Amino acid sequence: MFREKIKVFDCTIRDGGLINGHQFDDRFVREVYKALSLAGVDYMEIGYKNSKRLFSPKEYGKWKFCEDEAIAQVIDGIESKTKISVMVDVDRVDIEDVKPCKDSPVDMIRVASYVKDIDKAIYLVNHFADKGYETTVNIMAISRALDNELTEALQQLEGECKANVIYLVDSFGALYQETVEFLIKKFKSILKSKEVGIHAHNNQQLAFGNTIEGIIHNANYVDGTVYGLGRAAGNCPLELLIGFLKNPKFDIRPILDLISKEFIPLREKMEWGYIIPYAIAGMLDEHPKAAMALRNSDKKENYREFYESLVGDDLD
Amino acid sequence: MFREKIKVFDCTIRDGGLINGHQFDDRFVREVYKALSLAGVDYMEIGYKNSKRLFSPKEYGKWKFCEDEAIAQVIDGIESKTKISVMVDVDRVDIEDVKPCKDSPVDMIRVASYVKDIDKAIYLVNHFADKGYETTVNIMAISRALDNELTEALQQLEGECKANVIYLVDSFGALYQETVEFLIKKFKSILKSKEVGIHAHNNQQLAFGNTIEGIIHNANYVDGTVYGLGRAAGNCPLELLIGFLKNPKFDIRPILDLISKEFIPLREKMEWGYIIPYAIAGMLDEHPKAAMALRNSDKKENYREFYESLVGDDLD
Repeated sequence: MFREKIKVFDCTIRDGGLINGHQFDDRFVREVYKALSLAGVDYMEIGYKNSKRLFSPKEYGKWKFCEDEAIAQVIDGIESKTKISVMVDVDRVDIEDVKPCKDSPVDMIRVASYVKDIDKAIYLVNHFADKGYETTVNIMAISRALDNELTEALQQLEGECKANVIYLVDSFGALYQETVEFLIKKFKSILKSKEVGIHAHNNQQLAFGNTIEGIIHNANYVDGTVYGLGRAAGNCPLELLIGFLKNPKFDIRPILDLISKEFIPLREKMEWGYIIPYAIAGMLDEHPKAAMALRNSDKKENYREFYESLVGDDLD
Repeated sequence: MFREKIKVFDCTIRDGGLINGHQFDDRFVREVYKALSLAGVDYMEIGYKNSKRLFSPKEYGKWKFCEDEAIAQVIDGIESKTKISVMVDVDRVDIEDVKPCKDSPVDMIRVASYVKDIDKAIYLVNHFADKGYETTVNIMAISRALDNELTEALQQLEGECKANVIYLVDSFGALYQETVEFLIKKFKSILKSKEVGIHAHNNQQLAFGNTIEGIIHNANYVDGTVYGLGRAAGNCPLELLIGFLKNPKFDIRPILDLISKEFIPLREKMEWGYIIPYAIAGMLDEHPKAAMALRNSDKKENYREFYESLVGDDLD
């Protein structure tokens, strides 16, 4: 028996874009959008809405900026019920760049925020909601949030914020399912009027398991990416989510085709997935950036040395 | 705070041997044993005790037979508290080949059995227990066990069997954590005098998550393999288990070294891990043999066709 409220949210192109500077070409993005549409996936996140004053279009691909015209072009002519989302980082968006929803191909805007920036996130979300968008707040690095500060942030979100959904984001792939249960229950206990979502990273091969744990405790928005593509260890594999969920509207076949034709060749050119330095970063609750640097060095398989470098910091 | 009763059981060489006909050379096995010993792992399973009347030593490596002399030689001179285990399949062992424990380098014998063969498993276990070995029964293909038959088998094990530990084995990598919880609670409710163990397969990237789920519900014997090595999708990665458990006796560093030096090169020659046909077999609760055959064919990346072949059987 399925839970109709569960929405599957794909962020392949957005999170995968963190590996390649958002340089996916239009053909590839169209293939992903086609497959997601055929598979019945509810949302596709295509990139970030970043300010061109802060980031150079010479350095980054178009999915770091997600101009309406670029999106309209890439989805043109494809029959679909899959909604389009873009992500916004606090302090990196020019809000005047965002047109009213009725004039845009974008349906949803998700605002990524640390707990400390929650006031800024609420300001942004309310602005976008007033322009007609579905909105979410994605609370990043949740494994490092202090409980009292998280409580206050959630109370503010419940009281002041127009977002439909509040996500917990395990940015470091550090959570085990007991903590997922604790956090989702905490979110649900405060966010009486909102849905809760989960965005997991796969450093310890727990992205899918933790997402199921979220579903068990009534998270209804679940993020995945095709073949787990995403920064560092990547994300919850969308194909596993589709295999798990029982809603008959989902069809795994187009995703299988997409992986065969596009993602197996892509994996030869881009690295993501279960790789020991990312696992180490996850179990130590660290940002993956040091592990990513290691993977681009000639010490990429020196795991012990990398481990010692992370546990060796002097603390007082 | 750690739970001292939790025992970490490595089956790298035994389950990995199912990929290569148990042909690991002595040097490799010694390196694994050394690293496990330094890491504080409680048990190492080295292979099967199979009858040479049933399997040819010309076709299979020595770890399919695990003669005492071969084991004694491969662990000779290595300081270690890690106990040695061998696995026995119902109907494939000559029990007269098994010497008394006091004359053997083997500490534990695990008997693998389907529910239907539980009487045979009990007979074998009691025989080995009488010879002085620690013993377990590993109930295979648990995702296909009928509840009433499983209940009866567990009652028999509790009443008639000398095994110290009863394992649930998710042979097909098909379980989600809700069913793990259900099964472990069922095991614990009947097996009042025994410990419960879990051996998971990683078809759906759930081996580690399901093992944690087992631990949450008081399974105290947990199986892992280095870098997840094992048939098809492999097993719960031992390095993740060691990273998760809090017992200070464990040290992850020797396992990290072992992966760097031995398993990264090995992965170039042997295939295991998260591969879509194994994921499909897992989500459809099927034996991996069809997926393994696919991976050895020229259609190895034809995922949709493979999926259709598994869901397409006519049933009445």
